[in-house]
Amino acid sequence: MARIGILGATGYTGVELSLLLEKHPEAEIVFISSEASAGQELSAVFPRLAGCDKIRGKTLQNAASCQSVSVDVVFSCLPHGASAEACLPFVDGGARVIDLSADFRLADPALYPKWYGKPHPRPERLPEAVYSIPELDRAKVLGAKLIANPGCYPTSVLLPLVPLAKAGAVGAGPVIADSKSGVSGAGRKPSLGTAYCETNESISAYKIGRTHQHLGEMTQQLARAAIGGLPLIFSPHLVPMERGILTVAYVPPASGFDAAMVRQILADTYAGEPFVKVLSKAEGLPATGHVAHTNRCHIAVAEMPENDMVLVVSVIDNLVKGASGQAVQNWNASNGWAETLGFGA
Amino acid sequence: MARIGILGATGYTGVELSLLLEKHPEAEIVFISSEASAGQELSAVFPRLAGCDKIRGKTLQNAASCQSVSVDVVFSCLPHGASAEACLPFVDGGARVIDLSADFRLADPALYPKWYGKPHPRPERLPEAVYSIPELDRAKVLGAKLIANPGCYPTSVLLPLVPLAKAGAVGAGPVIADSKSGVSGAGRKPSLGTAYCETNESISAYKIGRTHQHLGEMTQQLARAAIGGLPLIFSPHLVPMERGILTVAYVPPASGFDAAMVRQILADTYAGEPFVKVLSKAEGLPATGHVAHTNRCHIAVAEMPENDMVLVVSVIDNLVKGASGQAVQNWNASNGWAETLGFGA
Amino acid sequence: MARIGILGATGYTGVELSLLLEKHPEAEIVFISSEASAGQELSAVFPRLAGCDKIRGKTLQNAASCQSVSVDVVFSCLPHGASAEACLPFVDGGARVIDLSADFRLADPALYPKWYGKPHPRPERLPEAVYSIPELDRAKVLGAKLIANPGCYPTSVLLPLVPLAKAGAVGAGPVIADSKSGVSGAGRKPSLGTAYCETNESISAYKIGRTHQHLGEMTQQLARAAIGGLPLIFSPHLVPMERGILTVAYVPPASGFDAAMVRQILADTYAGEPFVKVLSKAEGLPATGHVAHTNRCHIAVAEMPENDMVLVVSVIDNLVKGASGQAVQNWNASNGWAETLGFGA
Amino acid sequence: MARIGILGATGYTGVELSLLLEKHPEAEIVFISSEASAGQELSAVFPRLAGCDKIRGKTLQNAASCQSVSVDVVFSCLPHGASAEACLPFVDGGARVIDLSADFRLADPALYPKWYGKPHPRPERLPEAVYSIPELDRAKVLGAKLIANPGCYPTSVLLPLVPLAKAGAVGAGPVIADSKSGVSGAGRKPSLGTAYCETNESISAYKIGRTHQHLGEMTQQLARAAIGGLPLIFSPHLVPMERGILTVAYVPPASGFDAAMVRQILADTYAGEPFVKVLSKAEGLPATGHVAHTNRCHIAVAEMPENDMVLVVSVIDNLVKGASGQAVQNWNASNGWAETLGFGA
Repeated sequence: MARIGILGATGYTGVELSLLLEKHPEAEIVFISSEASAGQELSAVFPRLAGCDKIRGKTLQNAASCQSVSVDVVFSCLPHGASAEACLPFVDGGARVIDLSADFRLADPALYPKWYGKPHPRPERLPEAVYSIPELDRAKVLGAKLIANPGCYPTSVLLPLVPLAKAGAVGAGPVIADSKSGVSGAGRKPSLGTAYCETNESISAYKIGRTHQHLGEMTQQLARAAIGGLPLIFSPHLVPMERGILTVAYVPPASGFDAAMVRQILADTYAGEPFVKVLSKAEGLPATGHVAHTNRCHIAVAEMPENDMVLVVSVIDNLVKGASGQAVQNWNASNGWAETLGFGA
Repeated sequence: MARIGILGATGYTGVELSLLLEKHPEAEIVFISSEASAGQELSAVFPRLAGCDKIRGKTLQNAASCQSVSVDVVFSCLPHGASAEACLPFVDGGARVIDLSADFRLADPALYPKWYGKPHPRPERLPEAVYSIPELDRAKVLGAKLIANPGCYPTSVLLPLVPLAKAGAVGAGPVIADSKSGVSGAGRKPSLGTAYCETNESISAYKIGRTHQHLGEMTQQLARAAIGGLPLIFSPHLVPMERGILTVAYVPPASGFDAAMVRQILADTYAGEPFVKVLSKAEGLPATGHVAHTNRCHIAVAEMPENDMVLVVSVIDNLVKGASGQAVQNWNASNGWAETLGFGA
Repeated sequence: MARIGILGATGYTGVELSLLLEKHPEAEIVFISSEASAGQELSAVFPRLAGCDKIRGKTLQNAASCQSVSVDVVFSCLPHGASAEACLPFVDGGARVIDLSADFRLADPALYPKWYGKPHPRPERLPEAVYSIPELDRAKVLGAKLIANPGCYPTSVLLPLVPLAKAGAVGAGPVIADSKSGVSGAGRKPSLGTAYCETNESISAYKIGRTHQHLGEMTQQLARAAIGGLPLIFSPHLVPMERGILTVAYVPPASGFDAAMVRQILADTYAGEPFVKVLSKAEGLPATGHVAHTNRCHIAVAEMPENDMVLVVSVIDNLVKGASGQAVQNWNASNGWAETLGFGA
Repeated sequence: MARIGILGATGYTGVELSLLLEKHPEAEIVFISSEASAGQELSAVFPRLAGCDKIRGKTLQNAASCQSVSVDVVFSCLPHGASAEACLPFVDGGARVIDLSADFRLADPALYPKWYGKPHPRPERLPEAVYSIPELDRAKVLGAKLIANPGCYPTSVLLPLVPLAKAGAVGAGPVIADSKSGVSGAGRKPSLGTAYCETNESISAYKIGRTHQHLGEMTQQLARAAIGGLPLIFSPHLVPMERGILTVAYVPPASGFDAAMVRQILADTYAGEPFVKVLSKAEGLPATGHVAHTNRCHIAVAEMPENDMVLVVSVIDNLVKGASGQAVQNWNASNGWAETLGFGA
C-alpha cells in the first residue's frame, strides 16, 4: 500500500481524485489538505464523499502542516503558483509527486510568465518534470518522480493530434481545435461567470484564437511530435453542463493523406489501449455523455470527399481523463502497474 | 389589420410565431392549423399560450379545412415537403406566404433531392420564391408574395459571412463554420435523440463536414455573394439547452485583410440595423444567452497577430432570429413597414 | 409619460424590470442606479439589454446621485435594509415608490428583526406602506404612494390560500406549503450555493419548517384574511432551473368543504383576472414552464375521495409575477390603469 | 462466480445495472436481453458502456432465446406485465430472480389491477415473492428465490417512514410525502413528456394525492409496519435533472414524540448501515447531488418548536438505491454476503 497525500482536496479535481483513490487497491490516504476548510473532515465539506472509508475520519489540514508527514506519493490539486512551492519539498523528501496544476508543464521557463502572468517560482526544477499523457508518454513516465499532469483541454486536443503530427499527416496551414467544455473546468471558486443563472441555457466562446493559457503546453507537445510544430488555433467554449470536453480538430491533410488514413493512424496508435477508443465509420460521432465519469477518450474521424480538411472529434470527461483520472493513470504508469488499476472497469 | 393564417402551429416554431404575432399590432389571426391536435384550442395544447387573446377561442383545424379561409398572409411552420403543397394554394389565392420550411429556399430544383431525399413537389414554382434574411435581402423581399424564410444555422452563418464574401475579404481555402445549437432546433416530435436524459449533461457533434442539409442554402447564398462561392465546411453540435445557436466561423483572410478590417466591414454593413450588433473589441465575445428570446444577432471578431485566420463569432436565438422572429421581420419588410414592428423592443 | 427611476438595476429583478418597462407605453426612464457598475451603461453590463431603447445611452449612477433627479415613480430593487433608506426621500419628494425589497412588507416593526436580523431602519414610516398582490389588494393599492411589492414565494402561496382563508374553507391543523424555486430567486451575487456545478443535477431543501424569512409576510397576510390566521409550515427547495416557483399547498378542509368546492372558490375569486387562471379538472396540473417569462399564475386543485386534505398547486415565474411583473402590475393598479398595460399579452 | 442474466438491458435501469455488475467480483454475465436491439452488442447501443469488459462481446438476444441459458441469477428490468412472464421460468429452473418491475411487489392480487390497469398475469405465484429494502427486510430476503425490488419513490419514502411507523411515532392525520424526481424515473421510451425542451427549465407536479401507482406498495409496506397503516398522501414531481429523488415527509407526531426523538429513532435504526446516513442537526439538509451515482440514502429531520408536524427529508439516486443498486444490494443480502460487495465504496 502506498502512503498518499492529497494537496488542495476541496476543488473539483480534488474531490474527483478522492473518489478515484477510494477505489484504488494500492492507495492508503495519509493526509488531505485544504487551506479554506482546515480542521474539518473532507466528507463533512462534501456530503457526497460520506461513503468513502479511506478519507472518513481524516481531518483536513493546511498544506504547511502536511509537509512533515511521511508519504510515498503526493497528488497536488493546488492552483498554479502555489502548487510548485508545496510540491517540491515532497520531491526532495523522496516522494513521487503528481502535479495537476500547470506549474511543471512548460519546459521552457520563459513561457511560464507569458501564459501565467508571473515568473515561475522555481524554474531550476523544471528539467526534472515529465509531462505525461500515458498513452503518448508511457516510456518517459515510468519511474518519474515529478509528473506534470496535462491540462483538460490539452488532453482532448493532443490525444487526436499528436499521432497525426508524428505520422506527418498534417499539411500546411493552421490546425484549428474548437473545444467545448463543461463548467467544472472553470474551478470551484464562486464567480459570476460560473453562476447557474449566468451559464445555464447559454453557450459562450472565450479566449479564442491564441490567447488561452493551455495553448502553451499544446504547442510545446505538438512541437515535440513534429518538427516545426503545428500552428494551432484554439477556441474554447463554456457549455451548460457540469463535465465533459468535446473537441473538433480541423486538420489540413498532408499530401497523400485523407480521412480514412487519419482514422487508421489513430486506430493503430491506440489499438489495445484500454482508455482510448477510435470509433469506426459505422460507429458515428461521439458525445461527452459517452465518457462522463470515466477515464476514457473516444475519437472519431469524419470523411469528406473533397479531402480539403480532415475533421477529428474527441470527447473526454474533463475531471477524469482531463485531470484526476489521468493523474491516477500516470501514477499507475510511473509504477509500471496496469494503467487500469483502481478504475474498476 | 392583416388577416393571418398559421399552418402547423403546434411545433416549436409555430408556438414562438404565435407568441410574436400576439404582440403584433397589424396581426389578426384567422386560422391556426394542426393535423395532430385538430379540434382543440392552441392554448389548451400549450398552456403557456393561455394569456394570448388573439389565439384564445380559435380552434385548431387541419390544414385542408383552412384552405378556403380568406387570408392576407400565411405563415407555414409545416415540415418540408408538406409545406410547399399547403402553401401554394394560398399564393394562388393572392395571399402572401412566408414559408419557414426548406421548400422554397433552394432555387435549383436539382439540389432539393440531394439535401432532402426526394424530388421537390412543385419545382416549377421555385422561381417565384425570395430567400430573405432582411438585413441582406431587404430590397428583394419588398412586395414579395412567396418568401423562403432561412434556416436557423444558415442565419447564424450568413449574417457574418455574406458581407465578407461580398467585400472580397475571404481568401483561399475552406471556410469553417463550427455551430452549436440548442435542442429545440431538432423539432418537437419525440425521439430518443432529443430526450432529456440523452441530451442533458452532454454535447455531441452530428452531420459534420458537408453532410447537413442546411449546407445547401448556405452554399447557394454564399455563391450569390461571391463569385465562385466559398468552400464551406459546416459542423453542427447539439448543446444541452433549449434555444440558441453560437457559430464560430474560421475565415482565411484575403490578402490585405485582417481581423480589424473584417470587424469594420461587418460594423459598416450592420450600422443602424436594429437587430444586428457588431461588438467592439472592448465588448468581448457573445453568448447565446445575450440574445435568447430576442430577434437579435450579436457578432464579434477575434484578433490574432499572426493573421493566418480570422475568427468571427455570431449568436442568435434559433427559434426567433433563426425562425419565427425572422419570419415576422420578413413580413414587416415585405410590406415596407419598420422591421421592428411588433417586436416591442 | 411617467418619469421613472430604477434603483438597483443590476440584479435579476432589476434586469427583468428594465425589460418590462422597455415595453410599457407610459414609462420614460430617467435614471437607473447601481453601486457596483456606476459609470457604465446598463446594456453594457447586460448585453441582453442591448436592444432596449429606453435604457440605451443612460449611464448607471450610484443611488446617492439619483436622489436629486425629478421622478414620478421609483422602483427599488435594492436589498432589504438599503432599500428603505433609498426610497423614503423619493416618497417625501412626492414620487410613488414601489419597493421590491422586504423593507415595507411587515406592518409590525417588531417582526422585522425576527426575520431580517436587525431593527427596521425607519419603523415610523411602516404605516404608510401598502402590501399589494393586485388581485387581492386592488382597492388598497389605488393611489398608494408607498407600495410594498410581495416576495416571490409569498405570491405563489397567497394567491391560492388567501381566498380559501377568507371563505372559511380551511380547517384545523397545519397548512403546508411545499415550494420549489429556480435559482434566480437566490439573487445574482456569486456564491457557492448558486454555482452551476453545485446546483445543476441536484435538488435540495433549505430553511424548511418555520425558518424562512418569507414566512413573516405570508403569516401576516393570512392573518388579515382569516381570524386567527393559519398555522403555516413552509418548505422551500432549490431546483436546477433559472426561474419559476411551483407550490403545492396541503390544506385541511373545513367541515363541509371539499376539493371541488375549493376549486370553485378559487375560480370565482379569479374569474376575469387576466393574470390568474384556475385550471379545470380536465386541464390537469400546471408546470412552471407554462408561465415562464409571463406575469401569470396558474392554479389547480387535485381531488381525493377521502377528502382528508385538499391539494392546491400554483405556478408563477418568480422574476415576473413573483417580483418585477407584479411591481409593474402594482404600478398600473395604483394609477387605476388596466393592469395588463405594457405586458403586451 | 455467479452466472447472471439481465432481462431488458436497454432501459436506464438496465444500463445502470450493467455498470454495477461490471464491478461486482462475483458476477459473470452470461446473457443480456433486449427486444428492440437484439443482435447488437450492448456497448454498441450504449457507447458509455464501451469500457465494460463483462458485457463487451456479448450480443443482445430477445428474452425468448435467453430462456434456455443456464443461470444462477436473473435481474429483470422489463416493464411490469412482461416481467412476471419472463421471470417465472427462471424461478422454476432454480435460479434466483430479482425483479425490478412492479410485478411481484403487491402481495394482494386484487391490488394489481387497481394500480396497473389489468389483472396480474400469474397471481398464484405472488406468495413466493419477497419485497425487500435490505435495511428493513434483511431477514426475509436471505435465501429468497424471487425478490421484488422496490420502486424508486417507495424506497425514498419507506426508508424514513417505516421505522417511525414501527416505533409508534406517527400520530393521527394524513402523512404527506412530497417527492421530487429526476426525469430518468420516467423511463427511456421517447415521449413528449420527457423531451428535453418540455422538461428543461420547468418543474411540474403529476398524479398527486392518491393516484400514483407507487402508492400501492408504499401503503402495503406501511401497513406491515404499523397496525392500521398510515393514510399516506403522495405528491410526485418531475424535476429538470437526470437522476435523484428528494422526498419531504410531513409526519404528524404521536403524542410524546418530537423531531429530536424522530431523528434518534432513525439514527438508531440505521446505525452501522453502510448505505443510509441520518444527518445530525448540525449537518443540515441533504441534496440529491450528495448521493448521485451512489447506493446511499441521506435522511435529515427538521425541528420546529411548535411540534405540530415533523419534517423528514430523504434523498436517493433513483437509478441506484431506487432501482439497480438496491437490486445488487438485494442480491448480496440474499446470499448473506456483505451488502456493499461490488459497490467499491
